[in-house]
Amino acid sequence: MLWPLTGPVRGRGAHSFKLPRGGGEVSRGWAATTADFSALVRNGISQTQCLILSFQGILSEEPLYDPKILERLDFNKVRSKFNPPVSAVRPGEGLRVRPLRRADFHRGFLQLLSQLTAVGDVSEEQFLKRFDAMQSCPNTYYVTVIEDTTNGQVIGSSTLVIEQKFIHGCAVRGRLEDVVVNNTYRGKQLGKLIIMTVTLLAEELNCYKMTLDCKDNLIPLYSSLGYFLEKGNSNYMQIRFDKAPS
Amino acid sequence: MLWPLTGPVRGRGAHSFKLPRGGGEVSRGWAATTADFSALVRNGISQTQCLILSFQGILSEEPLYDPKILERLDFNKVRSKFNPPVSAVRPGEGLRVRPLRRADFHRGFLQLLSQLTAVGDVSEEQFLKRFDAMQSCPNTYYVTVIEDTTNGQVIGSSTLVIEQKFIHGCAVRGRLEDVVVNNTYRGKQLGKLIIMTVTLLAEELNCYKMTLDCKDNLIPLYSSLGYFLEKGNSNYMQIRFDKAPS
Repeated sequence: MLWPLTGPVRGRGAHSFKLPRGGGEVSRGWAATTADFSALVRNGISQTQCLILSFQGILSEEPLYDPKILERLDFNKVRSKFNPPVSAVRPGEGLRVRPLRRADFHRGFLQLLSQLTAVGDVSEEQFLKRFDAMQSCPNTYYVTVIEDTTNGQVIGSSTLVIEQKFIHGCAVRGRLEDVVVNNTYRGKQLGKLIIMTVTLLAEELNCYKMTLDCKDNLIPLYSSLGYFLEKGNSNYMQIRFDKAPS
Repeated sequence: MLWPLTGPVRGRGAHSFKLPRGGGEVSRGWAATTADFSALVRNGISQTQCLILSFQGILSEEPLYDPKILERLDFNKVRSKFNPPVSAVRPGEGLRVRPLRRADFHRGFLQLLSQLTAVGDVSEEQFLKRFDAMQSCPNTYYVTVIEDTTNGQVIGSSTLVIEQKFIHGCAVRGRLEDVVVNNTYRGKQLGKLIIMTVTLLAEELNCYKMTLDCKDNLIPLYSSLGYFLEKGNSNYMQIRFDKAPS
């Protein structure tokens, strides 16, 4: 028997839920502590149930990819692009750059994406299914977020998608997708930070190039970060299918 | 103990190899028959070894994705684009459209790609490793080829790569990659055929859109097939990494 989440996310990514016998709130996730466990047990919840809750919590905080890769990114290469200097491991006070986690469903991740484009009514089940599907493709999806650690909300995101090729000696290339920063956090270099994080990630993961498709008004931003329109080879074309969402 | 392939690929994709005791050639792959088996056994090769060879052959002809999907593509939608009408299941006399197979390493697949761009010196081991890596990403890589069944060579190829999203109700989008037709087979609608095959495949697999990046001189071709440059949103940008192959 598991209890549904009852409230918004609090603090460092811990979910909270009310105890069934009115015993107050207990956090789960990485924040689950022996104190929480004692509170649960006092409320008549078995140790087995506690372990299930704990496992659920650990699973919900499992990163989409190994966060250690972010520590290897060399922001010295792009230091001149930031004032003051920031990096994936030092993004600034009260901020954290990390891989997407399942629990980010409760931290405003989809609401953030809806500032970029239509997301639609995605249930937690759909979200988790997509997360699992991404995770089941080895070395492919690197959805990376910026978390405001003061309120536990996801306030920036960008995705590196890696494509495997036969050409160029069975090389891999990267694609920059779905860049968005919460509009109340703009002007803090966070767009540049999240773009350069996944760009350096692509290089770290041995991509021979990173590419993107963008609107005209974003060309100056991407140009300032090293992206270029290749003469005679900078066309992005599309075809849309009838059954498509907008 | 397995014997190396000794010669070029013959006919319908069958590999051939010489028997170790000078007993002539035996084909392996789908073409492996009981007659082949008898020949092997007569030459002192155990039944177990025969089975291993047979399994190897079956594996080498396993398609990258389920070829039945190609039968579902509705070429009536794009009938006007072809004269005479062709489709993935009826590509024309002596031709076959199908998913990539491991054995295509021996059918000129990489040599074909080298007409598109640099491929480099890719060993069979590297090729197979890449094939397996693509196959280990569920519902992602749809490398599709045209085979000339009269000589067993791969003479056209194009790839649909599917990317999973959280946006648009956890939708999927398709990308058209690495389109190439052997230059001695040009003028036979094969470029259009392979492009439309993977485009219809993207629609069949519920992509909300299919996109591509291309050089200026290819815009008319893709425009004629339904692709368009969206006003204000048709920029393809890139960044290349030092360690990159050309």
